[in-house]
Amino acid sequence: MSLVIIGTVAFDAIETPFGKTDKIIGGSATYVGYSASKLGVNPKLVAVVGGDFPQETISDLKSVGFDLEGLQIKEGEKTFFWSGRYHNDMNSRDTLATELNVLENFDPVIPESYQDCSYLMLGNLAPAVQQQVINGMKNRPKLIAMDTMNFWMDISMDDLKKTISMVDVLTINDEEARQLSGEYSLITAAEKIQAMGPTYLIIKKGEHGALLFHGKDMFYAPALPLPKVTDPTGAGDTFAGGFMGYLARTDDTSFENMKRAVIYGSALASFTVQEFGTDRIKSVTNEELELRIAKFKALMSFSESRVLNEIKN
Amino acid sequence: MSLVIIGTVAFDAIETPFGKTDKIIGGSATYVGYSASKLGVNPKLVAVVGGDFPQETISDLKSVGFDLEGLQIKEGEKTFFWSGRYHNDMNSRDTLATELNVLENFDPVIPESYQDCSYLMLGNLAPAVQQQVINGMKNRPKLIAMDTMNFWMDISMDDLKKTISMVDVLTINDEEARQLSGEYSLITAAEKIQAMGPTYLIIKKGEHGALLFHGKDMFYAPALPLPKVTDPTGAGDTFAGGFMGYLARTDDTSFENMKRAVIYGSALASFTVQEFGTDRIKSVTNEELELRIAKFKALMSFSESRVLNEIKN
Repeated sequence: MSLVIIGTVAFDAIETPFGKTDKIIGGSATYVGYSASKLGVNPKLVAVVGGDFPQETISDLKSVGFDLEGLQIKEGEKTFFWSGRYHNDMNSRDTLATELNVLENFDPVIPESYQDCSYLMLGNLAPAVQQQVINGMKNRPKLIAMDTMNFWMDISMDDLKKTISMVDVLTINDEEARQLSGEYSLITAAEKIQAMGPTYLIIKKGEHGALLFHGKDMFYAPALPLPKVTDPTGAGDTFAGGFMGYLARTDDTSFENMKRAVIYGSALASFTVQEFGTDRIKSVTNEELELRIAKFKALMSFSESRVLNEIKN
Repeated sequence: MSLVIIGTVAFDAIETPFGKTDKIIGGSATYVGYSASKLGVNPKLVAVVGGDFPQETISDLKSVGFDLEGLQIKEGEKTFFWSGRYHNDMNSRDTLATELNVLENFDPVIPESYQDCSYLMLGNLAPAVQQQVINGMKNRPKLIAMDTMNFWMDISMDDLKKTISMVDVLTINDEEARQLSGEYSLITAAEKIQAMGPTYLIIKKGEHGALLFHGKDMFYAPALPLPKVTDPTGAGDTFAGGFMGYLARTDDTSFENMKRAVIYGSALASFTVQEFGTDRIKSVTNEELELRIAKFKALMSFSESRVLNEIKN
């Protein structure tokens, strides 16, 4: 089934303890799309870039199956730019620069050919813009997921809560879940956030994995321990792209299938962090992905126990 | 099979955001032992207390199956006392007081009746004392596990490394694994630590679960998300007690069985944190434990995927 993705397509400049980059290709929609494309889905992009955005990247996106009818190219304007420096623990970062550029007046337009989409992924953007996209769909998609961040909780909580009330799946990190709900326990936070609208909540915990909540059901996907993490940028978006890509590919929104989707999202994210930017996720093959899924299975599986019956006797 | 436990039997005074206690019963060996006793194992204790230690606690330990022949009671002296205050995140704490008392000159003696033990758990204590216990065993136990903490890395790394080289399983937290190995990646840290001696390494990550490493094999047990964590004290020791108790009960040290042992340890630890001190772990029934194991299974299990073959076609 078709997957529409809205988000940023951007330039990033990244510093980590392992090196730094000049302006490279980044953006939430970019990572979400590359990730979904690995699952055989052709992502339909809604985004905006400036005239400075490289034609070769546009060609590359098309060559791996992106539908770019919804990508606005503003000649004479500049692409959104973000620059950040990661701390030694790679879990926290400082933003060095944010140049909104074309994003400042982004007015997303949903092409007619996107209107029949069943799956909609709202990448991290202003909640009002995310809302505009939902409202721009003539028929409500079967499943709407959104990502957001603490920044929007700080400056536009009301807009954010309105948008959250309109979606099925919310993906945020643990600190954001605590901020949004005012609850420290993730169990209690998950209950409160589900009461705001989304019947599914995914709490991303970076190197500690991800939790999927739905009513009283919970599922935990670990992050795969890696010998080296080079650049965490885009890991959350890659996760979301794998999650939504898997659901769109299988067209099955049962909780059982969402568990598998979380594993695929985690597996794909584990590639992204191994190189700077989109370098690694772009090159992932089916065989590599399959091998990594097998690693997740090995990491999580244990066979039935037998001791308790013995204790009782 | 029999399990010998060395560690502290102590008084604790604890403050958390949810309340505070006067002097209550604590200590690494206490938690390890209570936890192992839930798996039908009678823990053989090697520890020391002062004349101020309550007779009713000694009676309670005996009543749940502790063998106290190796417990020294120093009349006229005082029991080890620790006091701490947890921060709001419950992951970090300040030590308010540490009164070594009887621990200062603790000279552990292994009773003759303990000498045939197959499983030995060295709770957190000075590495030199842990070493003395290993050397005090006439026959090397089948499996020796040790817990330790950053404090010993700071003040007696050489002693610590010597003790580590003598054991089969080391349990430490993620920061300690990084400090001990000098590596940030837990994968690389695990390799380096295994090269120091222990062929099994368990990295405890508190609310983020635990990782078991053995050669190239890895297993991840999440922590069960809970509505409320009242007091994290003793969670790591309860985990170790469940782990070693399960191995002693089943007498199977295969990697497959260690995975189950990690799940039992995690399940038992999830009880400990729900009340102050040993209150909750003491009251756990077989039925409650069985129910919690089922929750872990639900949290971690997902069925086979099918998408990749479709993608290939």
